Amino acid sequence: MRIAHLNLVAWLLLWPWCAWSGLPENARGTGEHAEQWQPDPMHEYWDPAIHHRPETERVEGVFKAEECLECHTAITPGIVKDWRTSRHASADKPVFCPACHGEDHQKLTFPTPQTCGGCHPQRLAQMEEEKKYGFPSHALAMERAVDSKHFADKPKAEVASCLQCHSVASKCDSCHTRHRFDPAEARRPEACLTCHSGPPHPDDEAFFASPHGQRYLTEGNTWDWSKPLRKGNYQIPTCAYCHMKDGNHQVADKAVWKFGIREVNPKTVENEIKRKRWLETCADCHPSETAQGFFRELDAERKATWTQLYSVERLLKVLRGDGLLRPSARERPPYPMDMMARFFPRERIGFYEGQASAFYNVSAIERDYFEMWYFDNLGAYKGMAHGAKGMFQRLHERLNADAHAIATTAERLRDAGKTDGKMELHPLWMEGEYTRFNRDHN
Amino acid sequence: MRIAHLNLVAWLLLWPWCAWSGLPENARGTGEHAEQWQPDPMHEYWDPAIHHRPETERVEGVFKAEECLECHTAITPGIVKDWRTSRHASADKPVFCPACHGEDHQKLTFPTPQTCGGCHPQRLAQMEEEKKYGFPSHALAMERAVDSKHFADKPKAEVASCLQCHSVASKCDSCHTRHRFDPAEARRPEACLTCHSGPPHPDDEAFFASPHGQRYLTEGNTWDWSKPLRKGNYQIPTCAYCHMKDGNHQVADKAVWKFGIREVNPKTVENEIKRKRWLETCADCHPSETAQGFFRELDAERKATWTQLYSVERLLKVLRGDGLLRPSARERPPYPMDMMARFFPRERIGFYEGQASAFYNVSAIERDYFEMWYFDNLGAYKGMAHGAKGMFQRLHERLNADAHAIATTAERLRDAGKTDGKMELHPLWMEGEYTRFNRDHN
Amino acid sequence: MRIAHLNLVAWLLLWPWCAWSGLPENARGTGEHAEQWQPDPMHEYWDPAIHHRPETERVEGVFKAEECLECHTAITPGIVKDWRTSRHASADKPVFCPACHGEDHQKLTFPTPQTCGGCHPQRLAQMEEEKKYGFPSHALAMERAVDSKHFADKPKAEVASCLQCHSVASKCDSCHTRHRFDPAEARRPEACLTCHSGPPHPDDEAFFASPHGQRYLTEGNTWDWSKPLRKGNYQIPTCAYCHMKDGNHQVADKAVWKFGIREVNPKTVENEIKRKRWLETCADCHPSETAQGFFRELDAERKATWTQLYSVERLLKVLRGDGLLRPSARERPPYPMDMMARFFPRERIGFYEGQASAFYNVSAIERDYFEMWYFDNLGAYKGMAHGAKGMFQRLHERLNADAHAIATTAERLRDAGKTDGKMELHPLWMEGEYTRFNRDHN
Repeated sequence: MRIAHLNLVAWLLLWPWCAWSGLPENARGTGEHAEQWQPDPMHEYWDPAIHHRPETERVEGVFKAEECLECHTAITPGIVKDWRTSRHASADKPVFCPACHGEDHQKLTFPTPQTCGGCHPQRLAQMEEEKKYGFPSHALAMERAVDSKHFADKPKAEVASCLQCHSVASKCDSCHTRHRFDPAEARRPEACLTCHSGPPHPDDEAFFASPHGQRYLTEGNTWDWSKPLRKGNYQIPTCAYCHMKDGNHQVADKAVWKFGIREVNPKTVENEIKRKRWLETCADCHPSETAQGFFRELDAERKATWTQLYSVERLLKVLRGDGLLRPSARERPPYPMDMMARFFPRERIGFYEGQASAFYNVSAIERDYFEMWYFDNLGAYKGMAHGAKGMFQRLHERLNADAHAIATTAERLRDAGKTDGKMELHPLWMEGEYTRFNRDHN
Repeated sequence: MRIAHLNLVAWLLLWPWCAWSGLPENARGTGEHAEQWQPDPMHEYWDPAIHHRPETERVEGVFKAEECLECHTAITPGIVKDWRTSRHASADKPVFCPACHGEDHQKLTFPTPQTCGGCHPQRLAQMEEEKKYGFPSHALAMERAVDSKHFADKPKAEVASCLQCHSVASKCDSCHTRHRFDPAEARRPEACLTCHSGPPHPDDEAFFASPHGQRYLTEGNTWDWSKPLRKGNYQIPTCAYCHMKDGNHQVADKAVWKFGIREVNPKTVENEIKRKRWLETCADCHPSETAQGFFRELDAERKATWTQLYSVERLLKVLRGDGLLRPSARERPPYPMDMMARFFPRERIGFYEGQASAFYNVSAIERDYFEMWYFDNLGAYKGMAHGAKGMFQRLHERLNADAHAIATTAERLRDAGKTDGKMELHPLWMEGEYTRFNRDHN
Repeated sequence: MRIAHLNLVAWLLLWPWCAWSGLPENARGTGEHAEQWQPDPMHEYWDPAIHHRPETERVEGVFKAEECLECHTAITPGIVKDWRTSRHASADKPVFCPACHGEDHQKLTFPTPQTCGGCHPQRLAQMEEEKKYGFPSHALAMERAVDSKHFADKPKAEVASCLQCHSVASKCDSCHTRHRFDPAEARRPEACLTCHSGPPHPDDEAFFASPHGQRYLTEGNTWDWSKPLRKGNYQIPTCAYCHMKDGNHQVADKAVWKFGIREVNPKTVENEIKRKRWLETCADCHPSETAQGFFRELDAERKATWTQLYSVERLLKVLRGDGLLRPSARERPPYPMDMMARFFPRERIGFYEGQASAFYNVSAIERDYFEMWYFDNLGAYKGMAHGAKGMFQRLHERLNADAHAIATTAERLRDAGKTDGKMELHPLWMEGEYTRFNRDHN
């Protein structure tokens, strides 16, 4: 009986107890794994509707707008200045501080999308409508963060960055700089790029490396950004021009490729409708034949990329079949939040086997494929879709390099399998990077 | 008799047949390998002189300039607006749409450099003159793309990005935004950087990380870009100031180092002449002693880098001599377009053995050296040449890291050679990533 | 007796002789290793106080300010134009060329911080004050470059980039563009980013990926940069706003984390004082509760990261204990400048064992940990500290990937240790990349 089988038996007996020992006391997170993690002080900022606790230490009293402004002009002049240049300040019926924050300084609130929706119901409704298109989408971003297994598994210090972007679902100032909320700012690409930057959503890199982006950099400062995002108003499109035409806050109804995460059949009726919407947008400036040719190239790029990804997936599955993935799924601790993996451990090969959360606690070759699939592939897609040639070239070159490296590792594993095959695993693998230790010390 | 030798015999017998089976029917590409690839719809855009086929479906009729403008102001207002702000529109004898596109909507053309050369013969002649300096150069960029072996070997979806930049040879709007064609725009670095970005020509990264680039970012928006690229007109030089002095469209006559691809003797008579041209340019702002000191540092950097590259090349050649490169050139399919490699297979070590196209189908250690030579080395050169210290430091650090990794892999290969040496190769290596399968499915 | 022990004996006998053979003649560098390296022509530029030698070839004569300007308006119009727009030119008593460069064209000088300090004593004193906070700091940057062992070990061509930034200690025009010296320019982030870019100080990437940086990109060009760096004058902070409040040229008195190089106890009295200074700066715009929450998250991020780094360090130390690091410290040449390492060779694991200079001549796994510690870790810290979520996420993902790769390499080393363990080392390791050969050919 191999040691791995003993481990399996041990786990079957021990995990139900282990899994719930050592958890933080008074854990009160949100989402599927709410019992497994505790919010920290910044959660009141990332998700004010749920976690905000008014600060009650410093100032007492109920204040009128003028009083707020008087005091805060001295204390935080920048945000008052931002508000004074906003439409909130210059409207016939100005929107003063208490409208969003309340009047009682002991019970101040942070505004949520619902707060903003009180005056902007159409925008709120548009964003909410995204939910019917599933994920990826802004409206579902927050729950898909706190509900993901690795969010609860990993040290909160490390997943802090997740919430800094995914909180787009729970507060409007992710895109609209408080307290100015100027549409002229939100129309510019920078409004999107604090989040859409770096893998796994390198839209920053893709846009600015494209001819669209380069022209924005040259001339953007001279354009009149107060104009709506409509044909003829801008010489080149920015993020919002194509993805939020006319300011529509529902960004999902043209999402054919879903970031390139999974292979997509671009010819379904639904996707043909979405493509038609794209072609209409492109036709604001380009002959529709050119746009169509471009999309056919994108189809071909996606097909070629998936052919390459699948060939590597098959290679990994052969290795698994031959018992050559080390440490195997049975030789390493399962993700704590993943009950099924405890009883039916499985290497993470390809999207449907959980590749999406293969950030850690997998064998090196699974991780290599994760990088290839998640970073190279997504970046190649984003580069191609935005006309960023250098990026597109670079990422395909990475896909090729990774395919090489994985094939070579595979040969070595086969070779090692013949000469030895009884690698003694270091305790690091048995304990896991993000299992008990981190849950205790989060 | 080793299995590799059997393979060789098999190939000698089978390849002549294999090589021409499964090719796309009606292939009608261009260049040396014209028979091996088919253009796709976007080729009419990348190389209009050869591939453009007028679109005959939608609009019939012969139109005058006013009619073009009337219709397109509604259909594609942005490009009309661009044209209206162009010198083409404000000239005494305006250059209207039909001058470049023709009048018959069923026979519309995309303009080529020859079209533009009709009015701008000096600029066309300057660009054509580049050809006498060889490659790299803009004038030869397109043929060097479609003529390279890996262009025909690889899926067209993947080489699409090559043409998006290399088409600089076949259309002027790679640098000059149609339909504005404003020299003021072309003088700014962004005009160059849609292509000169990312490996293997990271000029974007190099320029903006330099003191020149940082000052451009701070002040560039306030400068008068309508002035010619001449001493005293600009506070710092941009790409075009140094490389296209006075707007010269021949960019090759100062090209000493040729991107850093091969070792160059900077002291040849020809290169001394080129350096003198550089020093004259630098002297617009800098004492010539400082500029000379800087070039001596660049010489030293190049020499040190080639010393390091050659030491790694020697290491690989020793491994080849000992039969330790796996899969060896005999154990993997040759590049389909490379007839000689079919009969005399050879690992790709160093520039003269074909390193330049070692993107795929090579052993991991050959690929590692390709990355070191092509990306680290070129980037280090570009960083040094542009005064981008952080980039220069980063890439030298990468050169060191790659030299380490290759030396370690070499030790492992030696070690494995002693204990086993009879690695069973996975079919992936025998079929090749970009051979039959891709040619069938391009 | 293992070959490694023979090597040790050989070194003990031979190194004292080897170490001082083949050195450049007339070496006259500066710093601890002054005898081991020679300045090259650019040193007079990087460290003018020590290395500047006036150029005596071209122009003779003693000139008055008007004469300088007359001639140089024709020769180098750009720098004259810069001076004319400077406060030096428009002051009641203008600061003319000779004030900084002298009058005798055969004895021209490059100004040093002491030259500038003649009129700006407070700024010079502030910078000098940094020295009491140790390194990293601007004031000690130059000596920490030329005094570091790898500066003297490596080809000067390769360390040229070090001086291009570290010369911030020896000349003021690293930050202030000569000959304009406009505070309005120095207040903008670009003034800092020619150096603070790329690992190991990716502040460029961190700032621009943050909401602060994105707003700067959108609006920065419209702000009045002539205002002092003071509360209420800027809508978002730039580098200098937070790090050089009110223009203070002493940047070290808030430096709690020291780039993230070592683990720091943020709760010491000294660090609590520094944090208080930070909180005061943040409070110019943010509620202090939010700022405090943010710093607690940063504390947690640092703790989690060090936990991960230490677990990898322990792994490497176990391998060393088992004699599995190959080539071991005894099997490779020590750093030439490192006398102790010649007699007591030691692998470089962790900061205190010299990880800081483990750029080269270490085993692959030591180098991998160097990359993890120096690039991933520092970048993760910088990303977190500046609110650059994408960067922070990316670097933590790299930390995880590197921890994986190192653990897998460790397993392979253990495995190889059992089957063989007598790897024959290639001469590359015995000679060393940067030892005799490079010292001879620097």
